[in-house]
Amino acid sequence: MSLTVREIKAARDRIAPYIVRTPLLRMNNLDQFLGCEVYVKAECMQTTGSFKLRGAMNRILSLSEEELQRGIVAASSGNHGKAVAYACKKLGTKATIILPNTVAEIKENTIRQWGAEIVKCEVSERLEVAEKLCQERNAVLVPPFNDEAIMAGQGTAGLEIMEQCPELDTVIVPASGGGLIGGVATAIKSLSPGTAVFGAEPAALPRYSASLKAGKPVLVEKKSTVADALVSQIPGSVCFPYVAAHTDGFADVDEEYILRGMKLLLTEGKLLCEPSSGISIGAVLQGLIPVRQTDKVCFFISGGSVSLEQLHRLESI
Amino acid sequence: MSLTVREIKAARDRIAPYIVRTPLLRMNNLDQFLGCEVYVKAECMQTTGSFKLRGAMNRILSLSEEELQRGIVAASSGNHGKAVAYACKKLGTKATIILPNTVAEIKENTIRQWGAEIVKCEVSERLEVAEKLCQERNAVLVPPFNDEAIMAGQGTAGLEIMEQCPELDTVIVPASGGGLIGGVATAIKSLSPGTAVFGAEPAALPRYSASLKAGKPVLVEKKSTVADALVSQIPGSVCFPYVAAHTDGFADVDEEYILRGMKLLLTEGKLLCEPSSGISIGAVLQGLIPVRQTDKVCFFISGGSVSLEQLHRLESI
Repeated sequence: MSLTVREIKAARDRIAPYIVRTPLLRMNNLDQFLGCEVYVKAECMQTTGSFKLRGAMNRILSLSEEELQRGIVAASSGNHGKAVAYACKKLGTKATIILPNTVAEIKENTIRQWGAEIVKCEVSERLEVAEKLCQERNAVLVPPFNDEAIMAGQGTAGLEIMEQCPELDTVIVPASGGGLIGGVATAIKSLSPGTAVFGAEPAALPRYSASLKAGKPVLVEKKSTVADALVSQIPGSVCFPYVAAHTDGFADVDEEYILRGMKLLLTEGKLLCEPSSGISIGAVLQGLIPVRQTDKVCFFISGGSVSLEQLHRLESI
Repeated sequence: MSLTVREIKAARDRIAPYIVRTPLLRMNNLDQFLGCEVYVKAECMQTTGSFKLRGAMNRILSLSEEELQRGIVAASSGNHGKAVAYACKKLGTKATIILPNTVAEIKENTIRQWGAEIVKCEVSERLEVAEKLCQERNAVLVPPFNDEAIMAGQGTAGLEIMEQCPELDTVIVPASGGGLIGGVATAIKSLSPGTAVFGAEPAALPRYSASLKAGKPVLVEKKSTVADALVSQIPGSVCFPYVAAHTDGFADVDEEYILRGMKLLLTEGKLLCEPSSGISIGAVLQGLIPVRQTDKVCFFISGGSVSLEQLHRLESI
């Protein structure tokens, strides 16, 4: 565990020219629905549409010029792929992105627009396919989460949150492999040890709840979820110790509440997020994370990759 | 013309406990689509969902205690009615809201929730019906726009915009009767004479373009528009001189571009607005307002009263 707030601050300086300092929005209109003072970190407004650019950019900017020119390979359920494709276009190198067959069309199209090559496979095979391609092409693999440079990049969002509202009581972060919450929690606990950091993961894939209970990364059964960016079956081995050390608990959120969170943010907050981001609001709607009327609570809105057609299902929730 | 920035600043102090200082969002992700540096004033995040609360609250807080207790009547295509109903509930008096038969259901339901009585009529008769009700009940009419206290309240959004980004080159504001743009333009030109202020109105109801050409308020033919909050057929007589004095031009925006503006804000900006707010972005998409790559342009997003079902029509645009 060598990642500290020092590396996260270095990452911030490194990626600053390429990323947006996204707003932390005070959303008064959501207070009555969530029972607290609501803030949202709007990473759906980040360049490429999600926080993933922070980590990918930090990792790629840490490569040598020689490594960079060998080209980049990434395996991704979508947003990481977009981020790597964009970063490679900006930095003038070739990207090859491995996507699961189930990827949302809107994400795939964007990746294609940025000039990356796309290779599709089963979600369970994506890491193997990526490693094989790297060997064949002598390219550099940029992992989606299980890497300290990636975590340092994601952690820059945590630095911003605490600068934008130092008196936050609670921050709730969507979790999959743990790159985002590992980095964000490391930053927040360093700057403000009294701020609680909770993770929110799909109840269908409770990899962190199970792993924290076991004290080590545990593989959970493969199941589908509407939160299509939160599909890891096991915590990242690099991420897990940071998450275990710096978080205050996890909420395992039901599918219905994930969508309800997304719907509330859109209809009352007027902000569009992907289902995987609605999960942080869903966690409180489902009563899984304790909040009080006077608590300042930040909901981390990780991304906005969703099509208009996907909004239909919110109508019947 | 006695409204100046002094009255607008007084309004700001008066309404401050009741309204939200909404964010001015820098939306980098829209720059490539609009050809300028994009900012949006997010009044869709205002309490009651639109800027209308500013004017209504200022007008009602300017009443004597005796007037307040006689009860309030308002005629409105929706957002003004919501604002008056909310203000009356907050201040402990009765509201009666006159709605056009065509009002969106989502707006009507909200008004009912806040305990107001609702009376429906044809859109063309709404002012007469309101005046008759006031006489019968000895109540106070709060007009939607044609009033200096209303304009002063709406103008507070202009003060905020210039405080939030003093170096704006251009501000584009949706227009109907002229209460919003009259107040906002008065504030902006007082603080920053070099900032251009443009109005955006439906091409189907070009009441300001026609009136500015004629040098006086002109009644235009009644036509329908997707911008259901911008249905006035004639500028307000009180508003018109302020708009004529303090604006730099008007864009008459086609229905298709109104919806395209709304769609762009949602899909790329991740912010949900009503069609009447998409018009300011639509004006630039249609090429009706000149902007340069380095211009800082603020799009005034006036409200967010729209149902999920109404988003279907964006899919085919």
